[in-house]
Amino acid sequence: MTTVGIDAVEIWAGKCKLDLPGTFAPEKDEDPDKYRKGLGLENSSFPDVYEDIVTMGANAAKRLMDRKDLEPDDIGRIDVATESAFDNSKPVSTYIAGCLEEVYDGDFHHANKGERKFACIAGTQSIDDAYNWIKAGRNRGRSAIVIATDTALYARGSSGEATQGAGAVAMLITEDPSLVELSTEQGYGSADETDFLKPNQQFPSVDGKRSMQVYLARMREAVEDFESVAWDMHPDDFAYIPFHTPFPGMVRKAGLLGYRHMIRDTEIEDDLADEIGRQPREGEFEDWDAYEAAIQEYMDDLKRTDTYQSWYADTIDPTLSISREVGNWYTGSVHVARASALKTAAEQGRDLAGEKLLVGSYGSGAQAEIHAETVADGWLEEIQQLNIDEQLGDRYDLDFEEYEQIHDAHNHDMTVDVEEFTTPEGEFVFAGRGRMNERLYEYVE
Amino acid sequence: MTTVGIDAVEIWAGKCKLDLPGTFAPEKDEDPDKYRKGLGLENSSFPDVYEDIVTMGANAAKRLMDRKDLEPDDIGRIDVATESAFDNSKPVSTYIAGCLEEVYDGDFHHANKGERKFACIAGTQSIDDAYNWIKAGRNRGRSAIVIATDTALYARGSSGEATQGAGAVAMLITEDPSLVELSTEQGYGSADETDFLKPNQQFPSVDGKRSMQVYLARMREAVEDFESVAWDMHPDDFAYIPFHTPFPGMVRKAGLLGYRHMIRDTEIEDDLADEIGRQPREGEFEDWDAYEAAIQEYMDDLKRTDTYQSWYADTIDPTLSISREVGNWYTGSVHVARASALKTAAEQGRDLAGEKLLVGSYGSGAQAEIHAETVADGWLEEIQQLNIDEQLGDRYDLDFEEYEQIHDAHNHDMTVDVEEFTTPEGEFVFAGRGRMNERLYEYVE
Repeated sequence: MTTVGIDAVEIWAGKCKLDLPGTFAPEKDEDPDKYRKGLGLENSSFPDVYEDIVTMGANAAKRLMDRKDLEPDDIGRIDVATESAFDNSKPVSTYIAGCLEEVYDGDFHHANKGERKFACIAGTQSIDDAYNWIKAGRNRGRSAIVIATDTALYARGSSGEATQGAGAVAMLITEDPSLVELSTEQGYGSADETDFLKPNQQFPSVDGKRSMQVYLARMREAVEDFESVAWDMHPDDFAYIPFHTPFPGMVRKAGLLGYRHMIRDTEIEDDLADEIGRQPREGEFEDWDAYEAAIQEYMDDLKRTDTYQSWYADTIDPTLSISREVGNWYTGSVHVARASALKTAAEQGRDLAGEKLLVGSYGSGAQAEIHAETVADGWLEEIQQLNIDEQLGDRYDLDFEEYEQIHDAHNHDMTVDVEEFTTPEGEFVFAGRGRMNERLYEYVE
Repeated sequence: MTTVGIDAVEIWAGKCKLDLPGTFAPEKDEDPDKYRKGLGLENSSFPDVYEDIVTMGANAAKRLMDRKDLEPDDIGRIDVATESAFDNSKPVSTYIAGCLEEVYDGDFHHANKGERKFACIAGTQSIDDAYNWIKAGRNRGRSAIVIATDTALYARGSSGEATQGAGAVAMLITEDPSLVELSTEQGYGSADETDFLKPNQQFPSVDGKRSMQVYLARMREAVEDFESVAWDMHPDDFAYIPFHTPFPGMVRKAGLLGYRHMIRDTEIEDDLADEIGRQPREGEFEDWDAYEAAIQEYMDDLKRTDTYQSWYADTIDPTLSISREVGNWYTGSVHVARASALKTAAEQGRDLAGEKLLVGSYGSGAQAEIHAETVADGWLEEIQQLNIDEQLGDRYDLDFEEYEQIHDAHNHDMTVDVEEFTTPEGEFVFAGRGRMNERLYEYVE
């Protein structure tokens, strides 16, 4: 059967930025390294006052359609993943389709539009829906657009404030894709968890410590589930491993856990045994806690080995380059991580075609999903089209007072009058509200 | 390839009811026939104070699992469709899985959980996702549970107040289903519409007139799209046509429109020509408005013919029997309509196996979807298991003051202390809030 996967990707970053070590840290009277080294973040992206989840999603989708020379008739499905929705009934995909219909001939009246919500994992779930729709033979030769779009804002003064971000990733899902083919096999780790909630509220309530534990626990379950239907993974199997990246520091923990798992019973564990011993085995311990403590100790040693650090530098670190500059984009985060990795490979002149990625998605609440992707022949041409560096360089650098203004402007419970910091050009913008309090949009030439 | 569809269905109605002609009309000083004949409604179902979208969904799912003798390991996917979510990040499916894990051995840790939102059409979209997942070969022999659950409340005194309702429908999606097989072919009619919104609010803002126009316009597009990939439909093709039923009166309009479309250029149009003339053809008119007016006139005549009334009584009216007693369940509504039709056939001793249904789903915002279903051999045994008549008969009959108390108890913006009207037994109930304001649930023996 034909392969199905991601044919093309476009990224739209919020047009303002907050410099975490340079602007946020001094204001909070904290060491800049808390952000730069601890969290692994340089900047957060913020939407200007005329941007929101619809404009960012529509702008990313328009770049995708223009670049791939698509017309509305080519698209059979538009799915949006978000946890920043502003309506409890009408999906964001209808607003985005409405925007696109303003600038293209034709319409999306026979396309299935949808919206998925599950914290940060819904973007990957939407890709799966599109993949399954094509594999089920229901696409009539058409492609799907999947858009992951979020304004990941936290209450000011809350512990998550430094991990904010805003942006959208639009992906074209097709047969015989140019970028990556997706594996049929998937692994899930999923449980009813109370780590991160938004009970009828815009800004999250977070149990930070619990959230990190749950991320790792669900990811481990997903890896085990994936291996039960795929194969026992080895670190050499994957060119890159993009993870959901709430902040790069979290991925350092996930990467170490994954590496420890994959080297078990391999020549890598053997080779490291002289330096740090062999991995603890559960049967050697009286109880689970003792075993876990020993595993933790082994991982602390493992982290310092040249073998691990070299693997991490090659396989994980390249997935974090964009994230460091934009913060957490919730549903878009893991897809930004994939793009970062492929972009690094392109910059290094590496030939990736046929190589594999392992993609680890996660949403609080909580669920992890693991699948493999095979890089397709057209990947280099696709990834070279990204203009994310230009977008990041062009962002308006907010001072702290301006950051507070932007935060207020996007707070659903506040009505403030804030002047825009940038000038829209060739993009969709928020244009006020209509008679039923609906949000209105227009295209600015 | 194997067939995929709905293997089993269970319905859970809110445990209280409001008698519209008997209790609501007198309080509003209105003619009871406004509700009984105009809207076509007798009662609305309401959740008792210990019920919500999680308990109703979990209770329907538990009935499904018990009756089909399922264990958590048999389930690879739990998708919830709702427009009544109480959290902007954590999906209802995780809460429902958490409930079910309290009463079953094993867990759903390797099941994919999701949540879809698109007004009333998301239940059908979730069935599609499950269908596609199985057809794509990703289910590993497991089935999917799809739950459509809503508390469809309107602001008191608003125009939609009489069309409220609350309940859940749980469906098991499998290979070789016992109830109905789904067609691969689907028709969509979808546009960016502002007919019904919930902008950061629990209760909807509705443009009632526009909403009815949009329902019919999108349904017509969906029919045309379906016929472009399936076949030109004829009224004899379908035993029943379940539509999304915001209130039965709406379906009367949709049924007439569908019938008019299907009899065009058939022997039925010919046979009716002596009585009401032939259908207007667009080419005979100077402009679209004149054509539409003529079509409307033809439909007014058509509606009064014995031929139409007999078809309506056989094909549409049986889909409304449960809806008349429960009101609008949003995402569950069209699935209640299907169950009503099959239940009627069972009660009439009709042999439906192999016959076809046409299913018309709709969500404001707006999108219609049309697909065909083939009734499977096991349908009678399945549908006879429904205990919906017993549930409806057991409901607590609210007086108007009690109705207002129940409405307040479910208003997210109010905190009131209302005593329960019924006694829970053998069901999941809401049990207060936890430290992060999360909703807690327990099973009452």
